[in-house]
Amino acid sequence: MKPPHCDRAGAAGAGAWGWGAVWWEGGGVPSFVYDALPGRIVFGAGAARTALAAEVERLGMSRLLLIASERDAGRGLTAPFAGRVAAVFTAVREHVPVATAEAAREAAAGADGVLCVGGGSAVGAAKAVALTTRLPILAVPTTYAGSEVTPVWGLSDGGVKTTGTDPAVLPRTVVYDPELTATLPPELATASALNALAHCVEAFWAPRRNPVSSAVAEEGVRALAAGLRDGDPAQLLLGAYLAGSAFAVAGSGLHHKLAHVLGGLGMPHARTHATLLPHVLAFNAPGSPEATARVARALGRDDVGRDDAVAGLHAVTAAAGIPRGLAELGLAEDRLDEVVERTLPAVPADNPVPVDAAALRRLVRAAWAGQAE
Amino acid sequence: MKPPHCDRAGAAGAGAWGWGAVWWEGGGVPSFVYDALPGRIVFGAGAARTALAAEVERLGMSRLLLIASERDAGRGLTAPFAGRVAAVFTAVREHVPVATAEAAREAAAGADGVLCVGGGSAVGAAKAVALTTRLPILAVPTTYAGSEVTPVWGLSDGGVKTTGTDPAVLPRTVVYDPELTATLPPELATASALNALAHCVEAFWAPRRNPVSSAVAEEGVRALAAGLRDGDPAQLLLGAYLAGSAFAVAGSGLHHKLAHVLGGLGMPHARTHATLLPHVLAFNAPGSPEATARVARALGRDDVGRDDAVAGLHAVTAAAGIPRGLAELGLAEDRLDEVVERTLPAVPADNPVPVDAAALRRLVRAAWAGQAE
Repeated sequence: MKPPHCDRAGAAGAGAWGWGAVWWEGGGVPSFVYDALPGRIVFGAGAARTALAAEVERLGMSRLLLIASERDAGRGLTAPFAGRVAAVFTAVREHVPVATAEAAREAAAGADGVLCVGGGSAVGAAKAVALTTRLPILAVPTTYAGSEVTPVWGLSDGGVKTTGTDPAVLPRTVVYDPELTATLPPELATASALNALAHCVEAFWAPRRNPVSSAVAEEGVRALAAGLRDGDPAQLLLGAYLAGSAFAVAGSGLHHKLAHVLGGLGMPHARTHATLLPHVLAFNAPGSPEATARVARALGRDDVGRDDAVAGLHAVTAAAGIPRGLAELGLAEDRLDEVVERTLPAVPADNPVPVDAAALRRLVRAAWAGQAE
Repeated sequence: MKPPHCDRAGAAGAGAWGWGAVWWEGGGVPSFVYDALPGRIVFGAGAARTALAAEVERLGMSRLLLIASERDAGRGLTAPFAGRVAAVFTAVREHVPVATAEAAREAAAGADGVLCVGGGSAVGAAKAVALTTRLPILAVPTTYAGSEVTPVWGLSDGGVKTTGTDPAVLPRTVVYDPELTATLPPELATASALNALAHCVEAFWAPRRNPVSSAVAEEGVRALAAGLRDGDPAQLLLGAYLAGSAFAVAGSGLHHKLAHVLGGLGMPHARTHATLLPHVLAFNAPGSPEATARVARALGRDDVGRDDAVAGLHAVTAAAGIPRGLAELGLAEDRLDEVVERTLPAVPADNPVPVDAAALRRLVRAAWAGQAE
């Protein structure tokens, strides 16, 4: 089966007018293209218990396919509308192997909607179903992954992952209930929240950024920092929603390219993200006064400059138990050249500061040592 | 002709789960419903000249009805795609009289899309056409009205105005070009920008507020205040877009109810709005720490409290030549009771501070005198 679209998220919509954004804080005339995504968000403590049946009804779903892990299927959320659940699919897998997608699509035969309860794997399987069947999705997230508010799908075949963008895979309604994420293991919750934080910070210089995605991302930094500080699942879930929304529109940039390469070398995903982030912010700061201003403002340091935005972010990650340098995460010094070499071709052309091999090596070395460049 | 919907903007979507929002800044668990609106925004200096043809093509419009005043139709924006303009309607009128709507619909016979260039009157006529024909709208605003990003339509018949909400009247694409608004008469530009500012501030306590609409409204206050200070049409136009977006989602509250009653007494619309706004903020401040925090932050006074948000707003309106009290705008003292009496039944039940006749009289008197309560 060939997917209907297969491109960088949203890039198909670029058209004749470019994506570039010149920011008012930088002194230029703002210039941007923004394709706003539709969708209904219902957010509240207990919402999965008290509001889900009404949202199923609102979407006119009468023969649901429930996609969830065994554990999430066992939460009993469908009890108030059990008569509408036509089938249940629990064989979800990370990165949605094509065999998983095919099995989920078979389970969807005769269904008029998909309800997914879970994290990235359940949402990913639901998206795989919607990609070919065009069935509407209602999502109930149980982690801080954020993929429930993006039109990005992914499938894996052997070791190869294919991703693409299709409006049909964007859930029509998302019900956020912090009571569901309150029981996440603390380490997983922190890792997932730090991943969301990286999406927010990166949104300030990502290729399709605009004044709305930047305002939403700043709000996300605020909620995630407060949630990490207080261990508050409601603020973390709100931040995860905002981070997913900002990423869905703005895309990602240098930070995610580096993190992707480091992941390919076997580094731990979430901790690598979190260790890397303040270093990338410090590197991009001279070209993105907006990013440092917004990070500083969100972390409650509005009166200070670049260094304190970076220091603030270091403080947030340190409090979450994240080491300052990639060396402490086990990256050997003799692999730094390889990281530079693999990342360089993927660096976005409009990164706020120019990136050549020498500059990238300074960044990678600083992130490895856990020190300023 | 009976309009398909006729209700308060968005209220039809409330469903079983209420609209109320408890804010994290207030210490509670956030709780909200947010129906995000789709739409494509193209923003940039010269965009109406350089990007409009591509946007017409993107929407697949080949037989356009152009709706614009004589003056705006004469701007020549359709020259690059003149072959696609099937008809032109220039008889636009304020508040869209039903006869105007009918005439515009007749002009739309055979068209496959509507291009409107202008302010509220042109957008309003285009919406009246879309309401019955379901034709898609492409809008090019030339004022700071903001109605181009809302699904709210209005028709007037004699002295009676009917308004409603319908997704079909929300423009698919909006092209914002600050070169078009740069030639607005300064007094009109200021009045229109202050009206947008009122939408932003009111969005912080409006009935359907949520973390996204509040972040967008805060960004709007920032852009509008900077635009008013610098006389910069790009920042004003950006602020107008953000204000319209926030209002489209959040709705309006006490401030607009009061302004509506004062308008009915013959007070000047925009100046009344601007004079009133800081007083309503001061009145609502004890119940809405979020509103004062956001206004203060947007006006660059993050380290200060309620009084300085109010003082900051007074400073913005004073610099724009707006008097501090309604007395200076010609409101007679003996009409204050009438204002209270007419406004009281319309006050939203969830206004952040309780409103009874005595409280409302204190607010109205303070706004009249131009002093604190």
